[in-house]
Amino acid sequence: MNNHTFKGIIAYPITPFNAQEQVDLPLFKKLVERLVTSGSHGIAPLGSTGVMPYLNDEEKEAITEATIQQVAGRLPVVTGVSNLTTERTIYHAKFAEKAGSTAVMIIPMSYWKLTDHEIFSHYEAVAKSISIPIMAYNNPATGGIDMSPSLLKKLLEIPNVTMIKESSGDLQRMHTLRRDLGEDVAFFNGSNPLALGAFAAGALGWCTAAANLIPELNVGLYEAIQKNDLHAAQDIFYKQLNLLKYILAKGLPRAIKSGLEILGEDGGELRGPLKPLNSQEVTELATLLNAISA
Amino acid sequence: MNNHTFKGIIAYPITPFNAQEQVDLPLFKKLVERLVTSGSHGIAPLGSTGVMPYLNDEEKEAITEATIQQVAGRLPVVTGVSNLTTERTIYHAKFAEKAGSTAVMIIPMSYWKLTDHEIFSHYEAVAKSISIPIMAYNNPATGGIDMSPSLLKKLLEIPNVTMIKESSGDLQRMHTLRRDLGEDVAFFNGSNPLALGAFAAGALGWCTAAANLIPELNVGLYEAIQKNDLHAAQDIFYKQLNLLKYILAKGLPRAIKSGLEILGEDGGELRGPLKPLNSQEVTELATLLNAISA
Amino acid sequence: MNNHTFKGIIAYPITPFNAQEQVDLPLFKKLVERLVTSGSHGIAPLGSTGVMPYLNDEEKEAITEATIQQVAGRLPVVTGVSNLTTERTIYHAKFAEKAGSTAVMIIPMSYWKLTDHEIFSHYEAVAKSISIPIMAYNNPATGGIDMSPSLLKKLLEIPNVTMIKESSGDLQRMHTLRRDLGEDVAFFNGSNPLALGAFAAGALGWCTAAANLIPELNVGLYEAIQKNDLHAAQDIFYKQLNLLKYILAKGLPRAIKSGLEILGEDGGELRGPLKPLNSQEVTELATLLNAISA
Amino acid sequence: MNNHTFKGIIAYPITPFNAQEQVDLPLFKKLVERLVTSGSHGIAPLGSTGVMPYLNDEEKEAITEATIQQVAGRLPVVTGVSNLTTERTIYHAKFAEKAGSTAVMIIPMSYWKLTDHEIFSHYEAVAKSISIPIMAYNNPATGGIDMSPSLLKKLLEIPNVTMIKESSGDLQRMHTLRRDLGEDVAFFNGSNPLALGAFAAGALGWCTAAANLIPELNVGLYEAIQKNDLHAAQDIFYKQLNLLKYILAKGLPRAIKSGLEILGEDGGELRGPLKPLNSQEVTELATLLNAISA
Repeated sequence: MNNHTFKGIIAYPITPFNAQEQVDLPLFKKLVERLVTSGSHGIAPLGSTGVMPYLNDEEKEAITEATIQQVAGRLPVVTGVSNLTTERTIYHAKFAEKAGSTAVMIIPMSYWKLTDHEIFSHYEAVAKSISIPIMAYNNPATGGIDMSPSLLKKLLEIPNVTMIKESSGDLQRMHTLRRDLGEDVAFFNGSNPLALGAFAAGALGWCTAAANLIPELNVGLYEAIQKNDLHAAQDIFYKQLNLLKYILAKGLPRAIKSGLEILGEDGGELRGPLKPLNSQEVTELATLLNAISA
Repeated sequence: MNNHTFKGIIAYPITPFNAQEQVDLPLFKKLVERLVTSGSHGIAPLGSTGVMPYLNDEEKEAITEATIQQVAGRLPVVTGVSNLTTERTIYHAKFAEKAGSTAVMIIPMSYWKLTDHEIFSHYEAVAKSISIPIMAYNNPATGGIDMSPSLLKKLLEIPNVTMIKESSGDLQRMHTLRRDLGEDVAFFNGSNPLALGAFAAGALGWCTAAANLIPELNVGLYEAIQKNDLHAAQDIFYKQLNLLKYILAKGLPRAIKSGLEILGEDGGELRGPLKPLNSQEVTELATLLNAISA
Repeated sequence: MNNHTFKGIIAYPITPFNAQEQVDLPLFKKLVERLVTSGSHGIAPLGSTGVMPYLNDEEKEAITEATIQQVAGRLPVVTGVSNLTTERTIYHAKFAEKAGSTAVMIIPMSYWKLTDHEIFSHYEAVAKSISIPIMAYNNPATGGIDMSPSLLKKLLEIPNVTMIKESSGDLQRMHTLRRDLGEDVAFFNGSNPLALGAFAAGALGWCTAAANLIPELNVGLYEAIQKNDLHAAQDIFYKQLNLLKYILAKGLPRAIKSGLEILGEDGGELRGPLKPLNSQEVTELATLLNAISA
Repeated sequence: MNNHTFKGIIAYPITPFNAQEQVDLPLFKKLVERLVTSGSHGIAPLGSTGVMPYLNDEEKEAITEATIQQVAGRLPVVTGVSNLTTERTIYHAKFAEKAGSTAVMIIPMSYWKLTDHEIFSHYEAVAKSISIPIMAYNNPATGGIDMSPSLLKKLLEIPNVTMIKESSGDLQRMHTLRRDLGEDVAFFNGSNPLALGAFAAGALGWCTAAANLIPELNVGLYEAIQKNDLHAAQDIFYKQLNLLKYILAKGLPRAIKSGLEILGEDGGELRGPLKPLNSQEVTELATLLNAISA
């Protein structure tokens, strides 16, 4: 009965840079390949983890094409195309569709707080310009706007707005979505420390950058939920909780880069003003990662 | 392995008044009897629902004795004894013990914000004066103080502080308690809309006034969790969610009184400044109750 | 044109205790005398600073009578009579009137959040039972309820609710009161760090415990404002700002007790759970007081 | 003794668009001319009001050059050059300097929350690349980052970071700046409803879009403060308060565009997703403007 294209673990690659702060595409493809082969159920380039707002148009397009090429149809791809203006959002949404994305993800980025009417018109204009599905993304912490459950519900009336990603970290929002929209609503959780509570509330999937570091634990939680085994889900959630909280607290691009290096992988460089974790933070992260693999 | 005296549904009776705003003890006993016979696993007089802070000393003592007498050993009883001063808290804790309470519940009531040191000393002084267990209760919305997980953890080092009731409505607090204190920590959820998430996080029980109105749904949720059946727990939780949110939003003493009357029971009167739900609110509550029993 | 009984510096005495945590009435009278002779324009016993909620009925009555007796008509007296229940608030308001208070101050204390209708009825019932003026007091930090400017405006329609004390620390509230109620509205500021901004916004007076420690600076600020000399007001405000922030951060009863001792006065003891400042805090407070008198 | 280049009313022009959502440079110049001739003391293009984040690089450069050309040395110009990445911020700062700006304004725009170290390095890198002064701008509501007074103080140690614009709306921040940095600190208020309180606290100027609509009232407030006439300042502040609150609540670009039209001026179009005020809002704004000119 659950017939959704996206479900389970939707993995977010970082966007690595070289020493001159230019996008390192070969490394990016390698990092995408790791996500594909480690069990994730979907790939989401150009998310917050992928520092999309720090990239210019050509860089975004190169990342989009590199992802599609590397995934090569093995998993569905949902590409981030958010932009402050409606005109630029449409531009990137069309590019993502043409490049072969399965869907696009859109957060209403704000400088000036937008009214509900402005947000709805924004989504509607983008939706009309493409024919692939849209995942509406709510994340007040990064986007600056907090869409209410009733606005999200209204957005789902737009034909190709079919999925919601909730990252407000408020479990009651998910309850309201599930209650108002029924069992079949496709809502995804984007708040790492809420992974267990969100699945218990009926989330279809978990959008997470943690899959760069601990894919087996992320996938394991989803599988326990699929088996209706709450005790197993609890056990595997508490194993990863400390790490989930830590990478969120330190900022996902910074924490994933360092975590990859701790695991012996190349994480590339960051683009300024973002800076790497300091040495104490690296030690703390290594301790958490070691505790998990022990 | 789970050997706790308190677990499952801890039910909170209201304190009914007569037309002269005096405590109606015969009606109170009748309401306690309903809770005992409808499947609850513990009784908690003089909680927020029981408008404890609005009662004078003799009234509190009468309620305590009436509860013990009516429950008559069929269920464990945890009596609220919180007070602004340490001296008065000790007085009421001693009374509750002598009257036969299984345990006492204490929230650090505040007018002036207390330091962690002041809170710890407060609990320590009360704990030394009695030999029954203490449930430390965190509820920033009513008590005015928000105890951190680390303070709660420290309180559990006092020998007879053995249980925690968390009503902040923040699932992450429960995660932290469970992570820091292990599988055997006895933490209870006091936030009605968080009932499913809290059980999923490992809560031992749910402290709720909803058992005055929908005991079979409250108990049913607990039983589904006991059977490790997440899907069943989800179903029964979403059936009661609207009601749980409504009675919390309207204030538990006011909402439970009206709910009892809708169910054909006598709910007594309130003590000023509290006033009954207005007629529109009564209609809304009746609609929610009817939807559940339909 | 300004014909108000209360204006300027309304001083808040602490309630000192002896070693057995009993109210020390002789010391209380001595502390009241200091406030009267140091230039304050009104005296406010049984405020937050006077730990009113920690006192029993007889203690409140003794403090009320001691204040009236000691002030002996030299200054107006506004007595705190707030209580959780309407019945007890009326009781204490009547007592204060009979004892000779010029006015009473009432904050809608809450355990359960009150509706605007409940708050209005509470004030109305008390107002009808006495014939002296009422100062409605808004302080979400201690009282747990945040009365909106529109509710405060409505309260002023009750004939003997004639004054407002705003301690929310939000300057915009004062702007709204002044704008909606005109130049003659009698609003008082109860947030110490907002003293300059509130006077600039048109406050009639400043309710402060700081007058126990630095009365000449408090009075000096008011006098500069009276002379329409903003530059002088700025100078004298910045001289006392650090102290104002410090005593608020540490809790007024605790900070005033220690401050009195630093100044060579007896501050008495506190009642548990409140504890004295620790030695580092005493040193910090002494440094601030010395910097002012230097 | 006050030797600052910027002080008084710093006016923010909107950026008008044509029907195709392209920047309308001739209209922009006309709007700048109105600001110059109506008494403002400085001009600030590419601020929040000028929807800077919604413009591409060429548009920002055109606006910068048009401003310098139109102002023609009559007033100092502080140009907004903020950007998410350090590299782009440097690029625009250099352009602004070369074009003839008196100073640049920089808010640390965030997607990922930046650490204090990242923010400091960001400002330091930009400051080294130019020789004109920088106004560091704190506005958590639009920029997403809330810089503490201690961080702002540290930024002022960078040689050409010489001014601070505080838009957090928290008067205590200004108190702290003034207290820690002395009478000569150049801090500016960017929160319209705080204009009186900020001047009373010692602000050197007021950065405001209101000068597009009510320049004589904005300038009048500053002049009353300059004359040390608090009563006059109060009067003129309360005359404009309702309007100041309204344009802030509705979003400055939207409200200023409509206000200009109400005054008979051309306000141009907005760029999507921003939409004009609806007809009810236009009526409300017209009522407020009429009340002022009456």
